[in-house]
Amino acid sequence: MTNPSGGHVSLAAVPVTAVKFTDQFWAPRIELNRTVTLPQCFHQCEVTNRIRNFEIAGGLAEGEFDGIYFNDSDVYKVVEGAAHILASFPDSELDAYLDNLIAKFAAAQQDDGYLNTYYTLVEPDKRWTDLPVRHELYCAGHLFEAAVAHYRSTGKQNLLDIAIRFADYIDSVFGEDGLIGVPGHEEIELALVKLYEVTNEKRYLELAKFFIDGRGDSDRDYAQDHIPVREQSEIVGHAVRAMYLYAGVADVARHTGDEALFAAMDAIWSDVTLRKMYVTGGIGPSSRNEGFTVPYDLPNETAYAETCAAIGMALWSHRMFLLHGHAKYIDVLEQSLYNGLISGISLDGAEFFYVNPLASNGHHHRQPWYGCACCPTNVVRFIPQVGGYFYATSPQGIWVNLYAANQATITFNGKQIEVIQETDHPWSGDVKLTVRPERPTTFELNLRIPSWYEKITAAINGQQIEAAHNENGYLCLYREWKPDDTITLDLHMPVQRVIAHPSVTSNIRRVALRRGPVVYCLEGVDNDGSVQDIALPREADLEAHFEKDLLGGVTILRGNALRRKPVDWENRLYQIAPEDEETEITAIPYYAWDNRDEGQMVVWVPESTTDI
Amino acid sequence: MTNPSGGHVSLAAVPVTAVKFTDQFWAPRIELNRTVTLPQCFHQCEVTNRIRNFEIAGGLAEGEFDGIYFNDSDVYKVVEGAAHILASFPDSELDAYLDNLIAKFAAAQQDDGYLNTYYTLVEPDKRWTDLPVRHELYCAGHLFEAAVAHYRSTGKQNLLDIAIRFADYIDSVFGEDGLIGVPGHEEIELALVKLYEVTNEKRYLELAKFFIDGRGDSDRDYAQDHIPVREQSEIVGHAVRAMYLYAGVADVARHTGDEALFAAMDAIWSDVTLRKMYVTGGIGPSSRNEGFTVPYDLPNETAYAETCAAIGMALWSHRMFLLHGHAKYIDVLEQSLYNGLISGISLDGAEFFYVNPLASNGHHHRQPWYGCACCPTNVVRFIPQVGGYFYATSPQGIWVNLYAANQATITFNGKQIEVIQETDHPWSGDVKLTVRPERPTTFELNLRIPSWYEKITAAINGQQIEAAHNENGYLCLYREWKPDDTITLDLHMPVQRVIAHPSVTSNIRRVALRRGPVVYCLEGVDNDGSVQDIALPREADLEAHFEKDLLGGVTILRGNALRRKPVDWENRLYQIAPEDEETEITAIPYYAWDNRDEGQMVVWVPESTTDI
Repeated sequence: MTNPSGGHVSLAAVPVTAVKFTDQFWAPRIELNRTVTLPQCFHQCEVTNRIRNFEIAGGLAEGEFDGIYFNDSDVYKVVEGAAHILASFPDSELDAYLDNLIAKFAAAQQDDGYLNTYYTLVEPDKRWTDLPVRHELYCAGHLFEAAVAHYRSTGKQNLLDIAIRFADYIDSVFGEDGLIGVPGHEEIELALVKLYEVTNEKRYLELAKFFIDGRGDSDRDYAQDHIPVREQSEIVGHAVRAMYLYAGVADVARHTGDEALFAAMDAIWSDVTLRKMYVTGGIGPSSRNEGFTVPYDLPNETAYAETCAAIGMALWSHRMFLLHGHAKYIDVLEQSLYNGLISGISLDGAEFFYVNPLASNGHHHRQPWYGCACCPTNVVRFIPQVGGYFYATSPQGIWVNLYAANQATITFNGKQIEVIQETDHPWSGDVKLTVRPERPTTFELNLRIPSWYEKITAAINGQQIEAAHNENGYLCLYREWKPDDTITLDLHMPVQRVIAHPSVTSNIRRVALRRGPVVYCLEGVDNDGSVQDIALPREADLEAHFEKDLLGGVTILRGNALRRKPVDWENRLYQIAPEDEETEITAIPYYAWDNRDEGQMVVWVPESTTDI
Repeated sequence: MTNPSGGHVSLAAVPVTAVKFTDQFWAPRIELNRTVTLPQCFHQCEVTNRIRNFEIAGGLAEGEFDGIYFNDSDVYKVVEGAAHILASFPDSELDAYLDNLIAKFAAAQQDDGYLNTYYTLVEPDKRWTDLPVRHELYCAGHLFEAAVAHYRSTGKQNLLDIAIRFADYIDSVFGEDGLIGVPGHEEIELALVKLYEVTNEKRYLELAKFFIDGRGDSDRDYAQDHIPVREQSEIVGHAVRAMYLYAGVADVARHTGDEALFAAMDAIWSDVTLRKMYVTGGIGPSSRNEGFTVPYDLPNETAYAETCAAIGMALWSHRMFLLHGHAKYIDVLEQSLYNGLISGISLDGAEFFYVNPLASNGHHHRQPWYGCACCPTNVVRFIPQVGGYFYATSPQGIWVNLYAANQATITFNGKQIEVIQETDHPWSGDVKLTVRPERPTTFELNLRIPSWYEKITAAINGQQIEAAHNENGYLCLYREWKPDDTITLDLHMPVQRVIAHPSVTSNIRRVALRRGPVVYCLEGVDNDGSVQDIALPREADLEAHFEKDLLGGVTILRGNALRRKPVDWENRLYQIAPEDEETEITAIPYYAWDNRDEGQMVVWVPESTTDI
């Protein structure tokens, strides 16, 4: 499965509005995001004065700026989430709430188009004087993303107009003939490309390119500003910043065909995915810089693995797929999606992890909000977009990237083609796809073969076919498709014991349990309170059971393992090892941990092996 | 084995000059220290201008101060080492070399008694202005220790006079009516007690007490200066500083009977030995502060465990034994001595470890010298003193703390009693002791039963006796001893699999191998280059063999274990676990690692267990 060198393909994502989930995994999450997470995020933006800052800056209320200088971005991100929700769930009350908010943004926007409540209220004379730290361009980017989403969902221009005025102002300030500088926290680059895509205003794409080309003039690898982007080959610094930057770089490369950017992306991608990513898809191990350290430094208990970074990895991965058409990018997207990304939100939709460790002594818990609220507001805008990662089209055909029960109406070469998935994925590997072109149509149907597959069988209309993936990781079915043709795919899903590269010293002689895309963990509540002393013999059978009433419906793993017989540690730090005793263990999906009683958790379980 | 509360005993160490090693472990090390390490340390003190600084300060040479502000201390420490060596190996050439050096110290001493080449040459007006950082009192302490050792070994007063003049000057400067302050790096406290013990000048003991009582007025827990010593109960900060302080505190408590100091010592001792000590006896896990962190934070690969700290632990442990007469203090002393302390010096006596990790990727090696040379100069003064830890006397009898072949001439109640040990300890647990009082004498012979014992047998003159230890951890034999009475002690020495407290997360489901007092490691050179992927089944027999030509003569452990079958890691960070394959492993004593080809090393080996 090598990536064909220089083989840039022309892929377009099938928009989220074309995909309707009929499953028990994503549909309930999207509904909970709409009914619980969204209202809670808006409520928090109100009670923390994030919205009031706009009212004060707009002369609609009296008072002083409250909070920290990047708080505007949180409001924009929740608005973006609401806009994505409106696309699939028309809701006049929410629509009116947004218009009311947008009026406050409009009031806070200055005559010249500038919009940032912190600078307007606290340091009006200091605009653009602290680009490395103060996040003005970052906040602007989130405004642009919200505006594009709002325009696409509702067709309304009220927020888009604000964004355009601000973008035009920024464009008038920055540039080769104006202010030279780059944001300390990237985000505006990808946002400007979105703005370009809805307005067709080339200046925005040029400005995005300007901010990318301008990096490399400082020594701050924390912000990927240590060397020019085209010369970068290793992932460094703050993880979320890196993901947002490279997502924007991929967008610019897609529009410009810039080979040097493609090459840099490929090298950095390899570095992060082959040396610096947790098995959960989490990235950025260190709390010190909220980011990357050295290759293979992936500690479990102190893993930072910020929720925002997992979301950023999904954003970048999807864009890399659109550039290359290779399944490996979706493998990583899926790895984040089913593990280290959705671990960021509680099963009731009301509490968030900022950091996502892979082991815990029982003292790490989700919270309803954070002073730095980037993660909650990223979750609320990400979840309603999940359907947008499932399909893509190219001039040759349709690409099926992810599996879950859904009905998609895909526009291919001007024709409507319905694709229906029936499956219990991720709990089952059996997938039935029904293809419904308006009339018989010849095209490639590219089905992604996940990297975790061990064995696979496939049939078209009940007829077994050879289920081999091509060099891009897809099972490519080229034929004339007739209405109600069916493809059945059986992705066998044994429980897998996964090991980490031997240079990951924290996981030496340990295994992670995985079934399909889902990584498991042992949690104290299922295992007599203590999981750190458990060892899993190689030969122990682990059986998978679906438990519909547990944790929203999950497949758990059960089997026999070993733990040390209890010994007295009073007045001892070391002692002679006691015998082991048998114990039954239960593993649950990692993403679902910390939703019941608090306690220990481990992903990487010490493995015991055959006797000699 | 509880420590009798308040039971302070009156113990005196038998001086090193009374003990003559006849063994193959300590005797060759002491000889190598004399013939290789000592000349090398003096040579380094010369070529790095440490000695020249004294010449310049004394007007014997032209030039400028070279090095760092505590470099004087290194010269004093090597002189102290040389003095200890002279006590057992009269050497007129060395004696003359020392006199020549002492003349330089004398020249550098100022008219008022002050002696510090950095301040005299660089900042003559700044004496005592930066006590927390600049180590003037620390350097003075090492001068005093050297002077006491030199006086005791040679009977000469030339160095002692310098020390006394300086001590008197310090005493005139500091005090309740003078300058109030404490050193940032402790050392002078224990040194002043030594000076008191040879001069009987009570002011020095008072001054030591002043420096101890003065701590607690800053927020610097780095230097144990955050709360008064009497209120301290946890070990914090820089490890060497802590050890030197508490050694001095124990000395003062021994002379003053100060109950509050006893209580603080006991609490801190428990904290470090029960929560913050490596199985090698190493202490101070973090390079950040060269010291302590939180309980059970004992990482292996990044362990700091400075050689000086292990030496400091031995110094403090021995003093705690003299206060309490309990074997547990000697257990810790022995644990350091045979593991994390002598790991600090190479087998050829020419290279030193500053830090002593418990795992290595192969890039950690000893060096002939360090810019901060505290460790080499601590080794060279410690090794010749080892014999001084073997025996003690109390009014009731003789205490045998450590085992190795030696002949000791012990003064007990004014009588000479010879004790002869015949044994291959630490490679064998068979010890034959012959007691030779001048005439039949009744006394307790207290034989320490090491904490690592599992089974023990003992006989007097061939007659089996009950080999039970008392509450202080000693086999107490009270009788009339006649010339050539023999005691045979058989301390069975199985290979032990040791586990760490479950809160030590770095060692979960791992075992350390120990035999007698010696902790083992796996080194790449004996194990096909790779030791991090080895797992040791619980049932695997490990056989001990003495190899006389290996590493200076060591007992190694051999057995069968498992390692992962090789798999291809090209383009992979995670993959499905391969089968294991059998492998033969060889473990060597930890202290002897990194004396052959470089490579990986581990102390804590993942354990595999019985199948289910």
